[in-house]
Amino acid sequence: MGSGLIALGPAAVAAQQPLSAGAVVLRTGFWQHRVELNARVTLAAGLRELGEAGTLDNFRLAAGTGTGDYHGKLPFLDTDVYKWLEAASWELQRAPGAELAGQVDELIELVGSVQQPDGYLNTYNQVVHGGERWVDLAMGHEMYTAGHLIQAGIAHRRATGAQTLYGIAVRVADLLVAEFGAGGRRDGYCGHPEIETALVELYRESNERAYLDLAARLVDGRGRGLLGDRPFGRRYFQDLEPVRETTGIYGHAVRALYLATGLADLSLETGDAGLLKVLRAQWDDLVSGKTYITGGTGARHRDEALGDSFELPADQAYTETCAAIALLQLSWRLLLATGEAEYADMFERVLYNGFLAGLSLDGERFFYVNPLQVRPGSTLGPDGRQPWFSCACCPPNVMRTLASLPHLLATTDASGLVIHQYAAATINAVAGVPVGVEIATGYPYSGTVEVRVTEPGEWTLALRVPGWARGVATVSVDGTDIPVPDGYVRVAREWRGGEVVRLELPLDVRLVVADPRVDAARGCVAVERGPLVYCAEQVDQAADLDLVTVTGSAEAGEPLRIGGVEVPTVRLGAKQNHGASGWPYRSYPGATEPGPEVPVVAVPYFAWANREFGAMRVWLPS
Amino acid sequence: MGSGLIALGPAAVAAQQPLSAGAVVLRTGFWQHRVELNARVTLAAGLRELGEAGTLDNFRLAAGTGTGDYHGKLPFLDTDVYKWLEAASWELQRAPGAELAGQVDELIELVGSVQQPDGYLNTYNQVVHGGERWVDLAMGHEMYTAGHLIQAGIAHRRATGAQTLYGIAVRVADLLVAEFGAGGRRDGYCGHPEIETALVELYRESNERAYLDLAARLVDGRGRGLLGDRPFGRRYFQDLEPVRETTGIYGHAVRALYLATGLADLSLETGDAGLLKVLRAQWDDLVSGKTYITGGTGARHRDEALGDSFELPADQAYTETCAAIALLQLSWRLLLATGEAEYADMFERVLYNGFLAGLSLDGERFFYVNPLQVRPGSTLGPDGRQPWFSCACCPPNVMRTLASLPHLLATTDASGLVIHQYAAATINAVAGVPVGVEIATGYPYSGTVEVRVTEPGEWTLALRVPGWARGVATVSVDGTDIPVPDGYVRVAREWRGGEVVRLELPLDVRLVVADPRVDAARGCVAVERGPLVYCAEQVDQAADLDLVTVTGSAEAGEPLRIGGVEVPTVRLGAKQNHGASGWPYRSYPGATEPGPEVPVVAVPYFAWANREFGAMRVWLPS
Repeated sequence: MGSGLIALGPAAVAAQQPLSAGAVVLRTGFWQHRVELNARVTLAAGLRELGEAGTLDNFRLAAGTGTGDYHGKLPFLDTDVYKWLEAASWELQRAPGAELAGQVDELIELVGSVQQPDGYLNTYNQVVHGGERWVDLAMGHEMYTAGHLIQAGIAHRRATGAQTLYGIAVRVADLLVAEFGAGGRRDGYCGHPEIETALVELYRESNERAYLDLAARLVDGRGRGLLGDRPFGRRYFQDLEPVRETTGIYGHAVRALYLATGLADLSLETGDAGLLKVLRAQWDDLVSGKTYITGGTGARHRDEALGDSFELPADQAYTETCAAIALLQLSWRLLLATGEAEYADMFERVLYNGFLAGLSLDGERFFYVNPLQVRPGSTLGPDGRQPWFSCACCPPNVMRTLASLPHLLATTDASGLVIHQYAAATINAVAGVPVGVEIATGYPYSGTVEVRVTEPGEWTLALRVPGWARGVATVSVDGTDIPVPDGYVRVAREWRGGEVVRLELPLDVRLVVADPRVDAARGCVAVERGPLVYCAEQVDQAADLDLVTVTGSAEAGEPLRIGGVEVPTVRLGAKQNHGASGWPYRSYPGATEPGPEVPVVAVPYFAWANREFGAMRVWLPS
Repeated sequence: MGSGLIALGPAAVAAQQPLSAGAVVLRTGFWQHRVELNARVTLAAGLRELGEAGTLDNFRLAAGTGTGDYHGKLPFLDTDVYKWLEAASWELQRAPGAELAGQVDELIELVGSVQQPDGYLNTYNQVVHGGERWVDLAMGHEMYTAGHLIQAGIAHRRATGAQTLYGIAVRVADLLVAEFGAGGRRDGYCGHPEIETALVELYRESNERAYLDLAARLVDGRGRGLLGDRPFGRRYFQDLEPVRETTGIYGHAVRALYLATGLADLSLETGDAGLLKVLRAQWDDLVSGKTYITGGTGARHRDEALGDSFELPADQAYTETCAAIALLQLSWRLLLATGEAEYADMFERVLYNGFLAGLSLDGERFFYVNPLQVRPGSTLGPDGRQPWFSCACCPPNVMRTLASLPHLLATTDASGLVIHQYAAATINAVAGVPVGVEIATGYPYSGTVEVRVTEPGEWTLALRVPGWARGVATVSVDGTDIPVPDGYVRVAREWRGGEVVRLELPLDVRLVVADPRVDAARGCVAVERGPLVYCAEQVDQAADLDLVTVTGSAEAGEPLRIGGVEVPTVRLGAKQNHGASGWPYRSYPGATEPGPEVPVVAVPYFAWANREFGAMRVWLPS
């Protein structure tokens, strides 16, 4: 088996190892359905949209085989193609198919036709700027664009063994090394981090130290203010202070998280404890006041920024789908580095909520912005999911994440197999000795996870006990309960094969409140059940959603069919308030006329906006 | 006496008439102090800043008498000069002074030197666009800029009788009439309303119907989508639908309110009941869910928009100072049109809070954005007041408002004198018969207002009973209590002169809560006392401001000296919560450990950020 999404280098310092390609095979259930939908519907829709948006035509223009104006005004539209190619490559690795392989090869040829003799490749600059390079490091996204090309090239080689796209990517990377590497210019770095993680992965793939060194050089050069103040100041670009001096995380959410992802990669490959310490401080800052309950990040529309601690508006939340994806990437790398359950817990929260809400249940429409509240008749964002965007970073980012998801469910460590996320799947890997299991579960709608050992031998099976099930989870081995610590339960045995380790995670409905400093959630509760955060949509309510107060009772409701799939619901006791008109401020304590009882129906947040688009709330007044 | 800020035309349909220039003379007290400070400090600082910012140099460039590049990137910087000229003119009318008059004349000469033979005058287009005109109706602000020039010209003529700036303005207006008036082009209107109100005022000053007609034509042409979708869609420009079909108010706050101001002017001069009906609907929409308790408007940073109903974040509030000024202008015109106290109540709320917070107590520094909450270490806005801005619309707008404030305190109606806002002042006017009073009051710090009649005769003295004092205000005439209706108490007498009408407005501290749909204020109280909204600043607290919960007791505290002036305080009972770190969401109902009692000290909102800049809250968790 070849390499998967991440392939740690031989000198890497990691608590856990990613699995090889194909080690995890999804069999059925929740994620199998979503990953298959991605393969069958979303990738195809993406290719169609790339064509219709003119993004592919831009390559023809740059290659001199097309005519007309450059499509779109953004300098990084090439990355939509690269992320699609990466997604398609992971899909080819997961389930090879001739049609998709042909489409991929066609695009690779198109991409290759644009590359200049010295390796330069950027349709925007080649067409719009007459070939001028490094035009605008702050906002030009040239290295960012190169980074996505490199990641696509690696994915394609890992999936198919072919050198085509990989060769293009290596030439781009070599040009970057020549220009910005040792002995090269030190007058800048890319305003949008991404190249760092890509270069580290290219080092892993090629074993060429120059790529790792360039990543380190770009990281350590950053923070000298070379990007200037535009458009939103140095914080926006993470250019306020040297990375190693940061004690928090700030600025544009995706930039901040992609940079942290690159730091984590560097730290993994170099064993740099200083970087890991910086990352832990950034993580603590992120999770203690800059992350929504959905795992979304980015509180501000204006500059797409994380915002201040506890600045977490539900309605004005930006919470870009790409930021959720970036947090998945960061969580995954910190999990590899440390093996600590907290990172897998966050991965799960983001995966099922902030990330998954970005894609419609039919697989063809997307959210860029993922608010936690929509008011009636809202004018804050689009009035529904969209098939594509003029800035279409999110859709192909969703595609590559889903296509590579099997790589992200389990790892090995020195003692055996570690399962982080639960899905009905077969896992076969090597952790010194061969390890193997078959997992049967209806997760996340069932809390029962049965792991049957399929590989005899002496090794440890570790299962994550999700943070939300702390203290209530039970684990048995062939029917005999064993103690359940926080984090991971580790079952070390001389396995005969056929033993069943059974994890029971009670799916009680949980009502959650926020720290009082989270002003936007004051006096409200959110609903969680298992790994899912719920929300209430107007379409399911008898009462005006903005005029209900929940009373504290909550239980599982009747499942609903939404977007062709059945989803569970939660039914909350609630009263309907009277809406008043006129000046909305009045004397304390104000008139509190109790209204009639009207239950509130909540659905999983990931399933919202798949029917009539209307008011929605994650935080419900209580 | 000549005309003041507004001079209704002979055919105007108005419930009340503005007073002539000089009718109100401030004698001492709160507003006299602020208006004098504006004259002595703020206007001088503004002229200095106009020079340092290069705004005056731009005129020299356009006149061919300067060299170098155009200063600033915005196309409407000329208006900073025009608003300063308008402010200085009102100040010259209020208190003539040779030095200021000389500075004004010098600037007028500079402005005149730029004007082209056919009247065109716009330094940005003349310098940056090589003289091209009507380059970009959506974002070019050409008519907006012309509007401010016209208003300055009118103010200067009313103040001094001179035709200099007025003549320049008339030539600009005549060019607009030729280009966009009857028989002219109908393919656009200005993306930023302002010209409408200016043209109506020019009609009032000149009695030239063409200006009124052009204002009507621009208003009635609007809403056909001719401005395009950029940058934030048609709502941003109030270009979504014809004005007369609107049922609410939306888009960029200042644009929306300036347009409404123009509609109100048109409606006043034409008696157009349809327009007034539209304005009432817009007003109802505004006050019932799009206005902050401070009278600020504009919930969104991204597009400076009013936002959805009840979308009123305290931290992410934009609430531009210019939007407060625009709401003063609109309220004043609707008060003239209808005579209804609601508009004067709103005027008072904006004046003492949302508007006044925009200027420092030393008169030299400004806020552009006026949040209702600042978190510790906030990165959302500037970390304090600024002497000027690259987009400096607010400072000279504050100056012209303060310089013209005496015009805005009282009116006449058919029966006599109507006093809307209370200040120690002498008022002499004519309402059919001469009317006159002398007002003694320490308002807003005292609730006692003594109005001594100085003009004998048969006329009615009407005093506004502020909405906040409804039901508790008392009124006596020479010591004898009289009934107090809501709105205005009207005392009709054959006055001998010397009678004292005494208004007592109890200044009890009021705790206020918001409609449950105002999510940002849920579970919080605000503090009001008299017309003032209060806030708590970190600098006055013993406890961490983000970790206090007020308990419901509130009383007047010890006055504080801030920025050289003494301001009252309110002392609130409160408990300090424990701050926790880590994931900020936990099980309902959550641990509620009661903390120690620590009182919270609140100061008037207008006085905030005049000491150490730090955390601040208008809404206090309760």
